[in-house]
Amino acid sequence: MNPLALAPLEDVQSQCDDRGIEIDEVGICDLRMPVQVLARSGSSQSTVATVEMAVALPHDVKGTHMSRFVEVFHTSTSTLSPQTVGKLAEQIRARLDSARAVIRIDFPYFIAREAPVTGLAAPVEYRGHLEAAVGATTEVRVGVRTPVTSLCPCSKEISDYGAHNQRGYVEIDVTCVPGSFVYLEDLIDVAEQSASAPIYSLLKRPDERHVTMQAYENPAFVEDIARDAALLLKADDRVGAFTVRVTNLESIHSHSAVATIRSRRA
Amino acid sequence: MNPLALAPLEDVQSQCDDRGIEIDEVGICDLRMPVQVLARSGSSQSTVATVEMAVALPHDVKGTHMSRFVEVFHTSTSTLSPQTVGKLAEQIRARLDSARAVIRIDFPYFIAREAPVTGLAAPVEYRGHLEAAVGATTEVRVGVRTPVTSLCPCSKEISDYGAHNQRGYVEIDVTCVPGSFVYLEDLIDVAEQSASAPIYSLLKRPDERHVTMQAYENPAFVEDIARDAALLLKADDRVGAFTVRVTNLESIHSHSAVATIRSRRA
Amino acid sequence: MNPLALAPLEDVQSQCDDRGIEIDEVGICDLRMPVQVLARSGSSQSTVATVEMAVALPHDVKGTHMSRFVEVFHTSTSTLSPQTVGKLAEQIRARLDSARAVIRIDFPYFIAREAPVTGLAAPVEYRGHLEAAVGATTEVRVGVRTPVTSLCPCSKEISDYGAHNQRGYVEIDVTCVPGSFVYLEDLIDVAEQSASAPIYSLLKRPDERHVTMQAYENPAFVEDIARDAALLLKADDRVGAFTVRVTNLESIHSHSAVATIRSRRA
Amino acid sequence: MNPLALAPLEDVQSQCDDRGIEIDEVGICDLRMPVQVLARSGSSQSTVATVEMAVALPHDVKGTHMSRFVEVFHTSTSTLSPQTVGKLAEQIRARLDSARAVIRIDFPYFIAREAPVTGLAAPVEYRGHLEAAVGATTEVRVGVRTPVTSLCPCSKEISDYGAHNQRGYVEIDVTCVPGSFVYLEDLIDVAEQSASAPIYSLLKRPDERHVTMQAYENPAFVEDIARDAALLLKADDRVGAFTVRVTNLESIHSHSAVATIRSRRA
Repeated sequence: MNPLALAPLEDVQSQCDDRGIEIDEVGICDLRMPVQVLARSGSSQSTVATVEMAVALPHDVKGTHMSRFVEVFHTSTSTLSPQTVGKLAEQIRARLDSARAVIRIDFPYFIAREAPVTGLAAPVEYRGHLEAAVGATTEVRVGVRTPVTSLCPCSKEISDYGAHNQRGYVEIDVTCVPGSFVYLEDLIDVAEQSASAPIYSLLKRPDERHVTMQAYENPAFVEDIARDAALLLKADDRVGAFTVRVTNLESIHSHSAVATIRSRRA
Repeated sequence: MNPLALAPLEDVQSQCDDRGIEIDEVGICDLRMPVQVLARSGSSQSTVATVEMAVALPHDVKGTHMSRFVEVFHTSTSTLSPQTVGKLAEQIRARLDSARAVIRIDFPYFIAREAPVTGLAAPVEYRGHLEAAVGATTEVRVGVRTPVTSLCPCSKEISDYGAHNQRGYVEIDVTCVPGSFVYLEDLIDVAEQSASAPIYSLLKRPDERHVTMQAYENPAFVEDIARDAALLLKADDRVGAFTVRVTNLESIHSHSAVATIRSRRA
Repeated sequence: MNPLALAPLEDVQSQCDDRGIEIDEVGICDLRMPVQVLARSGSSQSTVATVEMAVALPHDVKGTHMSRFVEVFHTSTSTLSPQTVGKLAEQIRARLDSARAVIRIDFPYFIAREAPVTGLAAPVEYRGHLEAAVGATTEVRVGVRTPVTSLCPCSKEISDYGAHNQRGYVEIDVTCVPGSFVYLEDLIDVAEQSASAPIYSLLKRPDERHVTMQAYENPAFVEDIARDAALLLKADDRVGAFTVRVTNLESIHSHSAVATIRSRRA
Repeated sequence: MNPLALAPLEDVQSQCDDRGIEIDEVGICDLRMPVQVLARSGSSQSTVATVEMAVALPHDVKGTHMSRFVEVFHTSTSTLSPQTVGKLAEQIRARLDSARAVIRIDFPYFIAREAPVTGLAAPVEYRGHLEAAVGATTEVRVGVRTPVTSLCPCSKEISDYGAHNQRGYVEIDVTCVPGSFVYLEDLIDVAEQSASAPIYSLLKRPDERHVTMQAYENPAFVEDIARDAALLLKADDRVGAFTVRVTNLESIHSHSAVATIRSRRA
């Protein structure tokens, strides 16, 4: 079929709409794409992203043009980073001819971690998040979910021996102060420093002994982990508003313990 | 083991904390419990809920008492409804001795739907949501995710025959005007009226013919569904702020189309 | 629209197929329905099921009639149990006029558990599974996923204090010996007896002390839990073939440890 | 801490076990790792894998050594492919000193697809699967889940206009005939040829017109898609046993239609 031979196809989306209702965000979600993400070190890594992109739609236009989101994202040559995600949102805003645009990108992100005694290294998975909203202003958000070990201070205190411990997740989401950029690695550092012990992919027996005892020496409730992370974030001039959410997959329950601190920095 | 024979166990949670950071929300999530939910008709149905409950924690207290959330929820005899969820949040606030409390409850919810021609009935699943936050004021939110059929107006217009259509989801979340209550059924009605056609669990051939043609006669973009739903919600005096999010599982793509309208009623 | 006024609608499914390929299973999956499940005690509980139903389709028939699965399931008045699931599969086989039929039903299942010291009770969630295949013979399978606590024997042995522990899941799936029936509660008992400690929904401090020390006194690898469960299952005359799969959400890793034992009883 | 200064740490896993029960598979699952996968074209792509690795454990040994799985996988320099996955399983078997080993690897896999009229290209996501079991013999399995469009033949036949259609998934899993290798691309070709139309990430209006009409011209039940795929697989000498499972996310229901064909080639 030759598209040039076709009569022009009606552009239904560009028709008028008389319902008088502006749409805050319209676009696509759950788009899966291979991407490159910039590391704090300056190198980049290949990973797979889940992407949501949207624009505002004026009250008098029937629809947006969905295929353009995919075109902009796919043809962008940028390595994703806190520096480039705002530019990508601006490209979307311009291509879709809208007053505002937003992009949200989630992806697994790997950092090689050395076991604390043997020094053997293997990648640990974190869940990264980059988001930008452009309109009258540009806002860039960086987030990451870090797996950690937590050990219950109450269980340790009241028991003659042992203490329940578990895998937990520290989710940190920050709005960058304009002109400043925070890296995933910065937030992962905050999370791991705040927990009872970091998580590793590869631990030999001397390492397992080390992290078992490290966790026992550093008991922390979800409240403690959230507060310690909040203190570190408040001390970072690059960080504007932030949210810390800590979730422990309690080993003695099927439900989780959770603590959330939100800061709207003046 | 006789608990009375034990030395009193240290209450680690009640210890002082000198980090000076209030916690916005601390509690439990992913608690699974059988519950009763009140229908608009006045009857109630048994279902299974996923529950999050949390309170604010002052800056100078180390931790909250997690087991009390489960106690309050489990011993509450209330059938869940927009009317009772605020009282449940207040019980949590009082039992945990906090300035603020929040409860969020998600559950599958079933309504018997009659096929449009044969009249045969079978339950359709919706995802219900009840939420209450109590503190200086009480806010009650009601939400539901409704599966619908959508048929693409552009595909219909530009093609000689056929039109791509797909399963979509209309998610509506409303804040009730104080003293008023919105039922899940009210929001499901809004969603189904706004889509190309409703979803059914049981359709015989005459019914399938009916809904196939109904969808073809009512093409709707995600933008159209969101706007029609917003118009209906704006006309309802019981509805304060609301969010409508429509997602189509595009049959010609692996990603989805999505439109969101947020209203903060004055 | 009056279905009687319609010309008879073509039955496309009943047309001949000349590709010569029998279909092992054709039907529906992810059907969500409210159900009643029979407990070992003789009482029943309301829950929500995810259902798959399918039949064999001869090589010369184009399609099956999907709506009939929903009709049979919805109009069945049976409380689900190992005794009734085989009859339900037989109803499907007869209604779909097939040589073989299978039904698989998954559902959350709750049992009130008393805390070990204070005796306070609250429901714990298990994931139940009932399956039946009917054809030349009838096979009934019963399964359940039980959350447990496990404590690592290696970590305990090599560390001066503490031991990593975590939430784990014991999945047991058994084929009932013809004429015999195994209850979910039987399999949950096996799982909880094999782990370091059971999971509870509600634990006060004396209870938390108890389960912390109980787990420390009963360290178990996934291998240990799987073997102890297998020994108990082998000793049960009602149990034919079985599979035990134990998964630990390692607190020191982001991956899980897993052990599987399959028995095909002679 | 200096590991050399430690007394030798007890190897608890190597202790004897007197329960007399062999474990079919013990190892780790849900390990997430960045990997390279070989394409049929000879190039390779970066993606992120979820990995399960396990070995058989004799009846008289207490436990396996979990960290060795991660070591073998992480230090392997192989690009993953049907040719290399068997060698990887053999490396695991040797390193864990076991009679049998199995590895299962799942990953998103992308292929650039050109829109049928405009020729614009963008990646489409497939879910790939590589598996190998080594023991007395070596078995290699290759699988992929392909998203497709399906249009209901019954709905088209009985309606005056339109036809319900939806996103579907074709899951093909094949055992390679020893010495032969099947690529993901081979199985994706089979799936896309069997459906009503392929799925694309990027379609402009002339393309959308094309695929809308293509699907309408090629109605297919799940039974049809499964049979057409089975015919193609039976004609491929490299394919031994195979399973085809086709699932349609019905646009008029919340449940799915599903057909499964299993072939155990003599």
